[in-house]
Amino acid sequence: MATKPESYENIVQTALRLFFHQGYHATGLNQILAESGSPKGSLYYYFPRGKEELALECIRRRNEFIKQKLKETLAENDDPVRAIQEFIRNTAEEADRVSFNGFMPIGFWTAAETSCISESLRHACVNTFTDWQHLYMERLQAAGWMEEKARSLAVLIISMLEGALILAITQQSSAPIYNVVDYIPQLIK
Amino acid sequence: MATKPESYENIVQTALRLFFHQGYHATGLNQILAESGSPKGSLYYYFPRGKEELALECIRRRNEFIKQKLKETLAENDDPVRAIQEFIRNTAEEADRVSFNGFMPIGFWTAAETSCISESLRHACVNTFTDWQHLYMERLQAAGWMEEKARSLAVLIISMLEGALILAITQQSSAPIYNVVDYIPQLIK
Repeated sequence: MATKPESYENIVQTALRLFFHQGYHATGLNQILAESGSPKGSLYYYFPRGKEELALECIRRRNEFIKQKLKETLAENDDPVRAIQEFIRNTAEEADRVSFNGFMPIGFWTAAETSCISESLRHACVNTFTDWQHLYMERLQAAGWMEEKARSLAVLIISMLEGALILAITQQSSAPIYNVVDYIPQLIK
Repeated sequence: MATKPESYENIVQTALRLFFHQGYHATGLNQILAESGSPKGSLYYYFPRGKEELALECIRRRNEFIKQKLKETLAENDDPVRAIQEFIRNTAEEADRVSFNGFMPIGFWTAAETSCISESLRHACVNTFTDWQHLYMERLQAAGWMEEKARSLAVLIISMLEGALILAITQQSSAPIYNVVDYIPQLIK
């Protein structure tokens, strides 16, 4: 696959930063153009369907990034409980590190802001959650959990973490995320 | 307190419906005016600070509504586990009843969409979560839990439910909410 030119990467990186900082609706194409220093023509050349198509690429990138981190963290520890705690703890540390700046969970702006307005963004978000679910499930099944139980635990872990992220962003405190870490051993045993 | 006139109620009800259906950013004052059939003057008479002030009133109303339901449900059952399960189950049933139309959790559009742009909306959202937390805590403490444990359980329950709502809205399925119901007995014991 040919490498995309710098101008493409510029647009995507700017969009990623703005979308995950301000949300989908609050970010206009004009701001993306201005802050990336790209001409309008090149944005529409790479993303003929405009903002929605650009958002899809941003969801895909963010999902790949999180999947990679989740996969690595789950593989690093022999104990699935500790592995899952480690991933959630890393999320809390990352939130504190950036002081919640540009720290918007993927489910957030896609689910909250766009599910009612765009089916393709909603589907991208469904796929993202499904990918994560499979990673947790695989790890739990490898440690001996039955498929059905692994699935329900995976859905619960994602629910707890996404919800804790809402509380954390609202309160500007990572405490609700660490609270989830504390309950993992009681749930996965 | 004097009763607010019909035009006030009209504006608030229209704003509630649009905000919780489309989100904060996607809803403009012009649409609220058009759909409520109100003149611009009356909106600014009641809400001099415009959309943000109107949103604060909508958060307050939604919070009062949810608090009332939570309070009643928690009081109805002698067993706190069953009471909490009942409240979460009611939420899932309500989501199905309206087919997820206009079903946007309060934390959602306030936290996700507005926390980065408005401190007063963020505070309204923090207060909302704190109110719910206190209701869960009171119920758990009345059943014998110590304050610190009751607090962490309350934060966890709110996290699980808010996160499950994100998954549910994204997948247009109430299954993630019922999944939380299943885990309540394991957590609160």
